[in-house]
Formats: sequence, structure tokens, C-alpha cells
Amino acid sequence: MHFGDRLITAVRRSGHPLCVGIDPHLHLIPQIFRVGDMAPNSLQTASAVRTFLAAVMDRVTGKVAAIKPQSAFFEQMGWRGIEVLDNCMKRARANGMVVVLDVKRGDIGSTAEAYATAYLAKGAPLQADAITINPYLGMDSLTPFIEAADTNDGGTFVLVKTTNPGSKDFQNLVHGKMPLYQTVARKLSELSKRHAGPDTGWSSVGVVAGATSPAEAVNIRKELPNSPFLIPGYGKQGGTAEDAVAGFVDGPEGPEGGIISSSRGILFPKLPPGAIGKDWERAVDRALAAAISDVQKALENAATTKSG
Amino acid sequence: MHFGDRLITAVRRSGHPLCVGIDPHLHLIPQIFRVGDMAPNSLQTASAVRTFLAAVMDRVTGKVAAIKPQSAFFEQMGWRGIEVLDNCMKRARANGMVVVLDVKRGDIGSTAEAYATAYLAKGAPLQADAITINPYLGMDSLTPFIEAADTNDGGTFVLVKTTNPGSKDFQNLVHGKMPLYQTVARKLSELSKRHAGPDTGWSSVGVVAGATSPAEAVNIRKELPNSPFLIPGYGKQGGTAEDAVAGFVDGPEGPEGGIISSSRGILFPKLPPGAIGKDWERAVDRALAAAISDVQKALENAATTKSG
Repeated sequence: MHFGDRLITAVRRSGHPLCVGIDPHLHLIPQIFRVGDMAPNSLQTASAVRTFLAAVMDRVTGKVAAIKPQSAFFEQMGWRGIEVLDNCMKRARANGMVVVLDVKRGDIGSTAEAYATAYLAKGAPLQADAITINPYLGMDSLTPFIEAADTNDGGTFVLVKTTNPGSKDFQNLVHGKMPLYQTVARKLSELSKRHAGPDTGWSSVGVVAGATSPAEAVNIRKELPNSPFLIPGYGKQGGTAEDAVAGFVDGPEGPEGGIISSSRGILFPKLPPGAIGKDWERAVDRALAAAISDVQKALENAATTKSG
Repeated sequence: MHFGDRLITAVRRSGHPLCVGIDPHLHLIPQIFRVGDMAPNSLQTASAVRTFLAAVMDRVTGKVAAIKPQSAFFEQMGWRGIEVLDNCMKRARANGMVVVLDVKRGDIGSTAEAYATAYLAKGAPLQADAITINPYLGMDSLTPFIEAADTNDGGTFVLVKTTNPGSKDFQNLVHGKMPLYQTVARKLSELSKRHAGPDTGWSSVGVVAGATSPAEAVNIRKELPNSPFLIPGYGKQGGTAEDAVAGFVDGPEGPEGGIISSSRGILFPKLPPGAIGKDWERAVDRALAAAISDVQKALENAATTKSG
């Protein structure tokens, strides 16, 4: 099934667009899962993270459409970390979740093809459903990723606007009358249309659209009416749920238009002193339910505002 | 020893700025090293690549200042490939070579820190001397990399200008009076100066400056007088040695200013039919000697042109 259709259908089925970011910050992993000093290069760290993430996946499976593992937190453990990433993605995909691997890769020619072989091609050793990619090297640097995704019902999310203060340094530079991020979005529009899913119309070419600037999200949506947004920055990064849904549009079951990622708030909830496994499970369940409800309320408000 | 000093001192000692790009294209690996089908996800592929690269390292050790492994070609073999990358970098560093890992990473906040932990921090599981990084996310996205490198006598090469035709799509967009790539270079200039090496003056903040556009290299050099250039695109990617040294400046032992990377021309020379190990060794030695001589001649011409 086409990636755009698959993603949005899964979101509709789950009843909300919340996506769980899998960012295993080593210093935040709860006591009950820690082994040894949890240094990135200690031999036991990767297997402790593997156990932690297996427990996380048990909590979130069936409750969200998608997860977004952040490659950096696996790479910091070297090849052992990549083995854990592999295991985590296989487990999630086997359970029917859409896996968007956040790797922000970008390179040219045969090097971009090698990255696509790693993550997107049929039989990729680190098979994801979609990955994030960086446009700085130009449109021809994106093509190998998009083509590999095409052969395998996969997708891409091109970085357009990010949530950090420094994102204005280059993304907001104006040439002609448009900021760079909007030019990137406009350059993608033809590609996005060409990759529309037959069932929902949503494209397999998505974009990363930061949640801390709703006006910018609206700008990006104008350029890319059928690109799914991957919206980071909700929760701990400072964006509100209302900001996050600013780029959503009317769908058959309410506003829709992508996935909203939250990581730390769900993976690392506050625990009572001396917490045991059951306490941790309850805390994660509560944090996930609260985040889902928060996003659902924002979507209801958005729907009311539009119809009102 | 400070990275800028270490890199340029090693280049002066070797007598040339040629750097060997370690891009293990699986379909180009010679018959004598192949095992099984050499598919990226086959179990034996990674160990075949490991053997091939050990043989390559035997040929180039002592002849070049630096190697530049391209992470994509390792990632395409999954975690087993990362283990081979780890082994390759350890071997090169143990033999005194400077390792510039081409990963083109870029992310924000704690995610950028996790990448820096993977590649640049003291005790990093995939310890490189320097890595390439992507500026699209803004200056604050570069800081964690530069700071981690600082603590460990490491360095960074920020993508400024690349060699692909599509590099004009965004890198050459003009705002005010400058193309984006020059704005990126200008924004880096303060950082570059602040990170000058005490011995040579060369900075630990370097830039990737494509070799197919010598005029652009001169522009970048004006903004960044003491940033080492990492110059890809020499050899198979279409740049000539003369193009590659356009951004070099006068040094105590002739023109200097960075490293020039060549990969395919050296790793995969043409072999006679039925070639055995000795034929391969001779072909690689000859290809490496020819590339070094080519770069040296270009530097001599550059020196003559300037003094003449």
C-alpha cells in the first residue's frame, strides 16, 4: 500500500496523529532498566536500551499509528546501538506500526543511493517505512531517496522548517520574496503531487514542518497541499498542540495532515521514588493517554474554529 | 595536538594534500575479495569488505595524511557495516592517519550532542578525527559538534558548496547580494578564527568546498582565510586537480589549505583479466602514485602562476 495512504489510514484508524519519538537518552532511562554505568561505549548499555525499548514498544503498540526512532541516540552506542535500532524497527513493523526513521541524511549520487539502500530499498538491512532527509545539497540529492522509497511503498520527509532558534539563520533567508524554507517547499510541490496516494491523495513525499511556528506551517501547507507533515517540537521542545495542528486540513474524519511527534514526555515520565516496573508502566500509559487527549482536543478546537 | 595543526602538519609531512576516500561500492570490489553475492544485507558481505579495506589500508598507510570513509557505504550493510567502519577507522588512526568521517550529520540540541558523542567526543564508539556536518538547521545546530570536537582535539567540516549540478538549487540562491553558500561561509568566519591552531593558524572548523567550481572556492577562501577545505569531486566526479587547488593559499612549503579527496580512481583501478592479489596491489599503488603526482603538479603550477 502506498506510503501516503498507509500513513494517513493508520492515523485515521488510531483516532489521532500522535507519533511516539524513540529517543533513548541514556541519562534519562529509568533505574529499573539501567545496567552498569550506561556510558555510550559500555558493552552492556546497548542491551539495556534494547530491553527498555522492548518495554516501551509493549506500552505503545496498538495505541499510535507511527513511531519515530532518532538514529543519533542509537549511533552514539556504535554498531551495537545500530543492532538495537534494527531490532526496535523490526519489532514495530511486525506489530503493524509505521516506522519513520529520523536520520536527516543527505548526499549526492551513488552515496545517496547507498543511504537509500540502507533504509528504504526492498530488503534494506535497516528497513524503515520512511526516513527524514536534508535538502541543502539540492533536488538531485533527494531523488535517489524518493526513487528507492517508490519501489518499496516507502516515503520521505524532507526537512523544510525546524523548531530550533537557529533555524532562522538560513531557512528564513529571503531571496526574491520568499524565505528559503518556502522555496524548498515550492520546489517539492511538483514531486509531492506526482507521488499522491491513490486512496487518500496524501503523498509519499512528506516534509518536516516545525511546530513552534504555526504561521510558517500554514505557508508550507499552501505550497504542499497533499504532503504529510512530520511535526516535531510538540511537548518538551516547546510547541503546543494548537501550534502543531496549524498545517492540518479537513479530512473525512476531521482535520488531518501528518503526524505529531512527542518523545521525552512519553518515554521518560516522572516516577515515584523507588518505582518498580508496574509504576513505570502506569506512568508511561498515563503520559501517552494525556498526550493523545491533548492532541485530540487541539484538533477538535481546530475543527470548531474552521466551521465556526 | 589541535586538529587544524595536526591536519596541515600531516599534509606538509606527506608532501601532498591527497586524501583517500574510502567508499566501498559493493559492485566495484574486485573479484579476489568478493564472497557470495555481495548483496548489502548478505551476512558475508561485511566481512569481505573488511578484508578488502584492510588490504587498501596496507597500500595507502604512510603515503597519505588522511582518509575519508563515507558512512553511507557502511550503513548500507546495517550494523555489520558499522562494525567494519569502526575497525577501519581504528586501524587508520593506530597507523597515524587522520580520519575524516563523511557522515554529513545535522540535527538540533540533544540530538546533535548524541551524534557528537558517537563520532567526536572522547571515547566515542566510532571515534573519528573530524566529521562532515550539514548547516541547513542553523548555527546552533553546529555548536554541539564543534564543542565536542574542541574537547578532543577533533574537527568539523561544514558543508558549504557541493559538486553536484543540483547544488545550485539552494546553495546558489542569492539573498541580499550573496549566494547562500557564501552566507554560510561568512557566518562561520568568526567561529573559524576562534578555532585557529596555535602552530599553523589553520582552524579546526573546516568546510566542504566543491572542486568543480574554482571561482566559488576563491569566494569561500575570502570568507574563511584559515579554514581547511575538504575538497571532494576530484577525479571521477569531474573536477581537475587545478580546480581543486583554487582555494589554496601560500604556506611555508608551497600552496596549502586542506585536503583533496579521491576515492574510486584509487580504490577501484582497472585490473587485467584474471588479476591476482599482486596485480591488484600494483594497480592500486600505481593509481595512488598517479593521483599524488597529478595533485603535486597542479600545486606547482599554482605556485608558478602566483609568483609569475
